[in-house]
Amino acid sequence: MINVAIVGVSGYTGLELIKILINHPNFDIKYIANTKGNTTSSTLHPCLQNVCEIDVSKSNSNDISKVASLCFLALPHKASMSLAKELLDLGVKVIDLSADYRLDINSYEKYYTKHIDKKNLSQAIYGLSEYFKDDLKNSSLVANPGCYPTACLLAILPFIPYINEGCEVFIDAKSGVSGAGKIANDINHYCNINENSFAYNPFHHRHSPEIKEKIKKITNKDIKINFVPHLLPLTRGMLVSIYATLKKDINVEDILNNRYKNSPFIRIKKSPVDIKSTSGTNFCDIYAIKNDKALFITSSIDNLLRGASSQAVVNANIIYGYKETLGIPSIAYVP
Amino acid sequence: MINVAIVGVSGYTGLELIKILINHPNFDIKYIANTKGNTTSSTLHPCLQNVCEIDVSKSNSNDISKVASLCFLALPHKASMSLAKELLDLGVKVIDLSADYRLDINSYEKYYTKHIDKKNLSQAIYGLSEYFKDDLKNSSLVANPGCYPTACLLAILPFIPYINEGCEVFIDAKSGVSGAGKIANDINHYCNINENSFAYNPFHHRHSPEIKEKIKKITNKDIKINFVPHLLPLTRGMLVSIYATLKKDINVEDILNNRYKNSPFIRIKKSPVDIKSTSGTNFCDIYAIKNDKALFITSSIDNLLRGASSQAVVNANIIYGYKETLGIPSIAYVP
Amino acid sequence: MINVAIVGVSGYTGLELIKILINHPNFDIKYIANTKGNTTSSTLHPCLQNVCEIDVSKSNSNDISKVASLCFLALPHKASMSLAKELLDLGVKVIDLSADYRLDINSYEKYYTKHIDKKNLSQAIYGLSEYFKDDLKNSSLVANPGCYPTACLLAILPFIPYINEGCEVFIDAKSGVSGAGKIANDINHYCNINENSFAYNPFHHRHSPEIKEKIKKITNKDIKINFVPHLLPLTRGMLVSIYATLKKDINVEDILNNRYKNSPFIRIKKSPVDIKSTSGTNFCDIYAIKNDKALFITSSIDNLLRGASSQAVVNANIIYGYKETLGIPSIAYVP
Amino acid sequence: MINVAIVGVSGYTGLELIKILINHPNFDIKYIANTKGNTTSSTLHPCLQNVCEIDVSKSNSNDISKVASLCFLALPHKASMSLAKELLDLGVKVIDLSADYRLDINSYEKYYTKHIDKKNLSQAIYGLSEYFKDDLKNSSLVANPGCYPTACLLAILPFIPYINEGCEVFIDAKSGVSGAGKIANDINHYCNINENSFAYNPFHHRHSPEIKEKIKKITNKDIKINFVPHLLPLTRGMLVSIYATLKKDINVEDILNNRYKNSPFIRIKKSPVDIKSTSGTNFCDIYAIKNDKALFITSSIDNLLRGASSQAVVNANIIYGYKETLGIPSIAYVP
Repeated sequence: MINVAIVGVSGYTGLELIKILINHPNFDIKYIANTKGNTTSSTLHPCLQNVCEIDVSKSNSNDISKVASLCFLALPHKASMSLAKELLDLGVKVIDLSADYRLDINSYEKYYTKHIDKKNLSQAIYGLSEYFKDDLKNSSLVANPGCYPTACLLAILPFIPYINEGCEVFIDAKSGVSGAGKIANDINHYCNINENSFAYNPFHHRHSPEIKEKIKKITNKDIKINFVPHLLPLTRGMLVSIYATLKKDINVEDILNNRYKNSPFIRIKKSPVDIKSTSGTNFCDIYAIKNDKALFITSSIDNLLRGASSQAVVNANIIYGYKETLGIPSIAYVP
Repeated sequence: MINVAIVGVSGYTGLELIKILINHPNFDIKYIANTKGNTTSSTLHPCLQNVCEIDVSKSNSNDISKVASLCFLALPHKASMSLAKELLDLGVKVIDLSADYRLDINSYEKYYTKHIDKKNLSQAIYGLSEYFKDDLKNSSLVANPGCYPTACLLAILPFIPYINEGCEVFIDAKSGVSGAGKIANDINHYCNINENSFAYNPFHHRHSPEIKEKIKKITNKDIKINFVPHLLPLTRGMLVSIYATLKKDINVEDILNNRYKNSPFIRIKKSPVDIKSTSGTNFCDIYAIKNDKALFITSSIDNLLRGASSQAVVNANIIYGYKETLGIPSIAYVP
Repeated sequence: MINVAIVGVSGYTGLELIKILINHPNFDIKYIANTKGNTTSSTLHPCLQNVCEIDVSKSNSNDISKVASLCFLALPHKASMSLAKELLDLGVKVIDLSADYRLDINSYEKYYTKHIDKKNLSQAIYGLSEYFKDDLKNSSLVANPGCYPTACLLAILPFIPYINEGCEVFIDAKSGVSGAGKIANDINHYCNINENSFAYNPFHHRHSPEIKEKIKKITNKDIKINFVPHLLPLTRGMLVSIYATLKKDINVEDILNNRYKNSPFIRIKKSPVDIKSTSGTNFCDIYAIKNDKALFITSSIDNLLRGASSQAVVNANIIYGYKETLGIPSIAYVP
Repeated sequence: MINVAIVGVSGYTGLELIKILINHPNFDIKYIANTKGNTTSSTLHPCLQNVCEIDVSKSNSNDISKVASLCFLALPHKASMSLAKELLDLGVKVIDLSADYRLDINSYEKYYTKHIDKKNLSQAIYGLSEYFKDDLKNSSLVANPGCYPTACLLAILPFIPYINEGCEVFIDAKSGVSGAGKIANDINHYCNINENSFAYNPFHHRHSPEIKEKIKKITNKDIKINFVPHLLPLTRGMLVSIYATLKKDINVEDILNNRYKNSPFIRIKKSPVDIKSTSGTNFCDIYAIKNDKALFITSSIDNLLRGASSQAVVNANIIYGYKETLGIPSIAYVP
């Protein structure tokens, strides 16, 4: 058994980490924290009553290092890196669900803020296991991918060699509201979301550089990615529609099947994917079709699981040499 | 007062026609029908109790010609043209909400069925008033545009001169469930739609040739349109996201403002449009932004109103020389 | 034309007042205000773009008295009475949508706060037109009923003479989220409401004394009313289920039909009412059934219209001797 | 390991049984069937792709008896009893999720149809484990409770001794749409449910006699139960609100805590229960409050789990002497 800690348990991804880890055969939750402490898991999340009753501490790196060898950070962007740095110095492995270790230094400082832990940033492994599994083994710091980048990269990467780089690529991404977090605001007011849908931050969302940078790193190609996210009137789940121009004729299904034949979390579908079939699971469903030179790829994930918490536990499994599917949810919220 | 008839009042668009026309100052409903007759408007639609209590007849062209000079056909595709032909022969003007008179003969017979009224097909005016207003005046047969083509054409037409014809254009369209009609099936089962979303018929939806053909007719350009519709978990409304590659630098807002400065139903927005602001109205809201050569246009309409019934009444206003906004709903379902 | 003002246009009921009054044939909006001013109607409510573009003032009673003879107050409870007092002193008639003039002084001060306008409180007419129409004519101050009391009173009042006063009466009320207002909070966060439902403040909601007091005032009976409100995952609408024990055998449908045969906004149904059929309208639909001594009454209203804004305009119609249905919405949001 | 079969896997409760049993440590699915056969689990339920790929047989009792010692029947009412009879004769234990073995013969034949297996009907154990645990041990035929009766009985039974039998008791029950099954019809059309709610079959739902009969059997009291179900615009979950008149003063929380202190699936709450906290689990959350003589009890369950499939597996655990919580879902669908 590996003893683990979770910091940031007040939010949705912290809750999902608890839900997965309390039933995981090889990880044992020894410490959970938020910024204030002095509460319990079931006070923060009443659905945990009788299921998980643990004291919630005020986050402290020394306390963590005494009880856990791995810590999941489910903190807001920017808040994560100072704690990660302390934990790594104390010998605690870190899986960071924020954006703080996902980008190269220039992109990070352009889109977020000044980085205060450049040394570890250069060592962090991007936790997209279908592409970085070998690097993840025995790593000490995992930058867990963002929800949009996860769904986009898994869908588009197999097709990069066949895309006409002279044309623009467009990603129309659609997310459930839980992706915007648990803090109430005018956007996530029920009456603003229900019976409604809209794009936001077209071309300028902060997940856009993450997608571009990883495509470049993995394929060495500069693809003109244009990312437009939309909000859907549903709580959890994400649907991504990618549009590109092909440079030659291809068999889209073969390309997907070949690339992911050994990937237990990828399901190649024979008709367009839907959100429900992946909700509650770590699966990424993918479907693609072409029309002459036009390519359409659509993928679906649970934004809080494959897009955050269950992906983080997969990465933990890989770090410790466990089977990557160990303790990972696969039963969808259907109906 | 112009006496009018509505055929096909059992469905959603028939209901919307009743709702608009009972309050219209210059049109007087004299006859409503469905395929069976022998019922009343408020039996079919309980929400009409105390609001509109009219007998529903079994559809008959002779009966219509005796009481009405204009007939709205809210019938399924294919069922419409035989009745339209009879009505036109009897001197009744027709506004057809089906696809039967929207396409040229070749496209129609490729995507639908054999056409049985070719003579009138060649005379029909496409009822997109922002582009065919002069033709609509005094016309006898209006082919009311489909919901997807309405939202797509209004958004893309102003930009056609600036689009790089060598690259693919992609339309990611998102519709509420009412667009799929009132007949219950596995797709529109509540549990299949709620907390779900998915693409359907990617590249192969029958509204695709309507969009392409009208772009060609209006702009004389062959644009490579790729149309991918999606279902959203909401009842009414439609959000269209269009992605294209520009051939030169443009000012997107100026182009929209100039094109639609005299169009009372088009609202150019300064931030991405949403579905709610047009639900319940005949408005089409449009927003566009570019990123170097990448163009994103997003439009929103009420699929049952601007995409069907209120657009039909606007066309009726124009036929008779009334102000086009007369009796047309403009108050959104907000909140 | 009567010149009117609306104070409190930022919220949902203020918006609904604007939406009704801009199309009303006999009322002319001359002034709208919120607490801050310095904005416009379509800035506050983007759906009003091209529909209603009016400057929004900072609320001031002197300014109102110069331009309007009637003022609608769509303000929070407690904030309303100081402005109402000023307006009445200046000769402006007031229709108050808050709770400030609905209760007798003892109940008000028990459930809300100290009342600062006792003189006018004693003069206010409770704006439930089916029961107080004669009093409303020529009145200067109308206390517009709360949404829950409206749906409950209209349903239960006809049955009061037949209810066994020795048994408890139970009201299970279910409201859409718009009833909780436009300010974002943890309760109305989309993820808390969607796929969820729950009771709140059982037996202790502040609409409970309003219901009891009006039953007593109208029927002179002390009925043991127990009121339990619930939130539903929908934006607008309210469904009330009332359970009582009868003291003798009755014909429930006759009782309803007789009581409301001259009430244009009441529809007696032959099967259980639903929320959709009244959404967007001023109707109150009512259905009742008994099982031996058990009585079930269910009513449906639009909480923002019949439960607030359209009821307010009905009351304005009555004050000025207009037909009560003049300019009142009757077309439901169906589908 | 106990080998089990599931018949009726096309529907929602069949799917839920598969989802629970594939991860259960002591039950091994050896056979699944529906009425047609010749398909696979993941063809029927695409969400099971890569999770559970089993052939679906055409239901046959002999085949079942060769491979399984326990069979779950997730069949429609009336269809279940002929298969159950065959299986019991062949020595296979049966857990029946239909109504066929829940009622005494008179009630069954009054509300459903002629019973063809009276012998076994008299032997069946009602599978509400909090009240019949001892009887369930080693039983051969379990009548799994209906969803409404489960939520109602667990909430009301502890209070029966304190209820004034001279007054009517009212149950206002609210169910998600999945309770109405997977077959598409006008009721469960998305546009009929979304933004809507309504009562159905007031006083005359077939779960009403089940509730009354079990109260009588367990407490020997004749309580005047009046049951009014409502549909909510959500997929899964059930909220029950019970209203009764007390005959004396009681401490409601003590009564609940005492009755259920050893019940692992009952959670007594300190504020009103909500649907989300039990969705995805076998929990029944209960909250009660009184106001003088008025009693309000509210309970929440997942209609497909505690109201059907997970309750069935709990009963299977008890039959075989396993811990009742073994393999039973406890992680809620939150957010």
